[in-house]
Amino acid sequence: MLEVSRRSLLAGSAAVTAASALLPMNGAPAAAQTPPVGTQNAGWYRYKVGTHEVTVATDGVNRIKFPDGFVANKSRDEVNAGLAAAFLQPAPDMIAIPYSPIAVNTGSKLIVIDTGTGQANFDRTKGAAGQFHGNLKASGIDAAQVDTVIISHFHGDHINGLLTADNKPAFAKAEILVPAAEWKYFMDDAEMGKQSSDRMKGVFSNARRVFDALGRKVTPYEPGKEIAPGITSVESYGHTPGHNSHIISSGNSKVFVQADVTNMPVFVRNPGWHLMFDQDANAAEATRRKVYDMLASERMMVQGFHYPFPALAHIEKTSTGYRETMVPWSPTL
Amino acid sequence: MLEVSRRSLLAGSAAVTAASALLPMNGAPAAAQTPPVGTQNAGWYRYKVGTHEVTVATDGVNRIKFPDGFVANKSRDEVNAGLAAAFLQPAPDMIAIPYSPIAVNTGSKLIVIDTGTGQANFDRTKGAAGQFHGNLKASGIDAAQVDTVIISHFHGDHINGLLTADNKPAFAKAEILVPAAEWKYFMDDAEMGKQSSDRMKGVFSNARRVFDALGRKVTPYEPGKEIAPGITSVESYGHTPGHNSHIISSGNSKVFVQADVTNMPVFVRNPGWHLMFDQDANAAEATRRKVYDMLASERMMVQGFHYPFPALAHIEKTSTGYRETMVPWSPTL
Repeated sequence: MLEVSRRSLLAGSAAVTAASALLPMNGAPAAAQTPPVGTQNAGWYRYKVGTHEVTVATDGVNRIKFPDGFVANKSRDEVNAGLAAAFLQPAPDMIAIPYSPIAVNTGSKLIVIDTGTGQANFDRTKGAAGQFHGNLKASGIDAAQVDTVIISHFHGDHINGLLTADNKPAFAKAEILVPAAEWKYFMDDAEMGKQSSDRMKGVFSNARRVFDALGRKVTPYEPGKEIAPGITSVESYGHTPGHNSHIISSGNSKVFVQADVTNMPVFVRNPGWHLMFDQDANAAEATRRKVYDMLASERMMVQGFHYPFPALAHIEKTSTGYRETMVPWSPTL
Repeated sequence: MLEVSRRSLLAGSAAVTAASALLPMNGAPAAAQTPPVGTQNAGWYRYKVGTHEVTVATDGVNRIKFPDGFVANKSRDEVNAGLAAAFLQPAPDMIAIPYSPIAVNTGSKLIVIDTGTGQANFDRTKGAAGQFHGNLKASGIDAAQVDTVIISHFHGDHINGLLTADNKPAFAKAEILVPAAEWKYFMDDAEMGKQSSDRMKGVFSNARRVFDALGRKVTPYEPGKEIAPGITSVESYGHTPGHNSHIISSGNSKVFVQADVTNMPVFVRNPGWHLMFDQDANAAEATRRKVYDMLASERMMVQGFHYPFPALAHIEKTSTGYRETMVPWSPTL
């Protein structure tokens, strides 16, 4: 049954081994059992954009049962089918939402864009999320050295990491840049008073909680400006009234840091889906299609806050939407 | 031009900061420059298949100019266009081939499947490839504790890591399992004598170099057998005469460890492309289509030796071939 060549028979040992080990599981001596290691690699990844050094430090993943109305214009069955088709369904009715803030070293400035769900969430999720500060440190970056934090919008998964677990500034010396329209809207008590849903009331009160702890020391920025060396703000309203994305540009290289223009890539495949967190769903969809048409036609890489880590992808247009291809991991910088 | 709300004006500090920082780059005090970190994360990733613990430890990436005939039945222009369409073209006429061997701890056995390009290649490529043993160690696995090494086929990027830089066994106590048909073919001097191309002569002589250094102490295995706990060999001939893939199975979970059923995912999108390293290109294509039809219909995950790290994907069938979706990185085990 097992054929070995004349050469290997003559060579001796191979043939002997072969003959004695037709059932290697039985024939081999009992080996000492090596325990499983049981730990995951640190969640950080580094790449260059021209001379800029970008570090992706994931905040982790929240696995939750999605609520009714998670996609306002699709049924629960349609959402489950779409998640399964995109291979993004941990189990029926479940989603796994990743978060990946980044740091950018421009040579003259050390900048963080968005900050994750915060240290308190680390305890609540038993370490599944709230990892950003741990992964940033593991990557060799000291939060105390960060010069600038750029915030895309005021949802908790983007601003909560501005604070430590004891509500102190997590980036001690950093200037905090916030979208001017976002600041105007969410810090306006009259707008807060108009809210009827608990979720929206929570967004307003959480923004006050975070920015009050920082003494409201923030620097509002406008879209379409170079707000840090080689980093330009881009108006991408809809998800929130002042939502901004950012383009990192250096030399011939560009990356579109989208924040929440889409959430998980299932919304890339289905740009017409209206995520419950899109405050103005029609504006968010129009922004999404405009941005993704641009990403596809210019072949510009996108860094997606809610894409799977390391969350860097290329985009192409399909007959029904768009499709991401994750940029291959480079094992060297 | 910058609008701040009545509330934020009254709050004081935010408004003052906003007013003084319309040009934050100019307005901010000169910050101490933090040097870039300049290093990449270690290239290992861990996941569970039932109770089995799988560790992907990448060997790195070789970036090379592809030779004429790289895809036997496609012109250089067609190959360039296909690589660009798949976002896998580092530059025209260039390819970046990743290598990702794995380790599997079954609870009773610590097993490695394929071994990378070898330590000597680490020096030759200045660390771009030949990383497997370093990443395996970084992941917390000691090569000296490995019980079994399973080899898929005898190309150098799969067997060279069996040896240390000084040609000693890299897995001191491990039983080395090799496909019986591969052993029969490549260790046969008559078959070696039939070869006319330098590349094929090199494959034969390299197999002798590696296995002679191990005293030819190997255990041939047949396809369709459980060759280690929960690991079954699967005949996938064509790429080489004895090429085997492996299915890791535990509980309700399965992964198809394909070895070289395809190379980089551009060959997933284009299953009819005949890679120059496919020794029997027609048989390799038939195997590829059969395996990928199965992966798509069963929604079985595939661990692709030449996929981008961590090289774990889902497969769907398209109108023109297949398409991979990388499995999301889980920041916890």
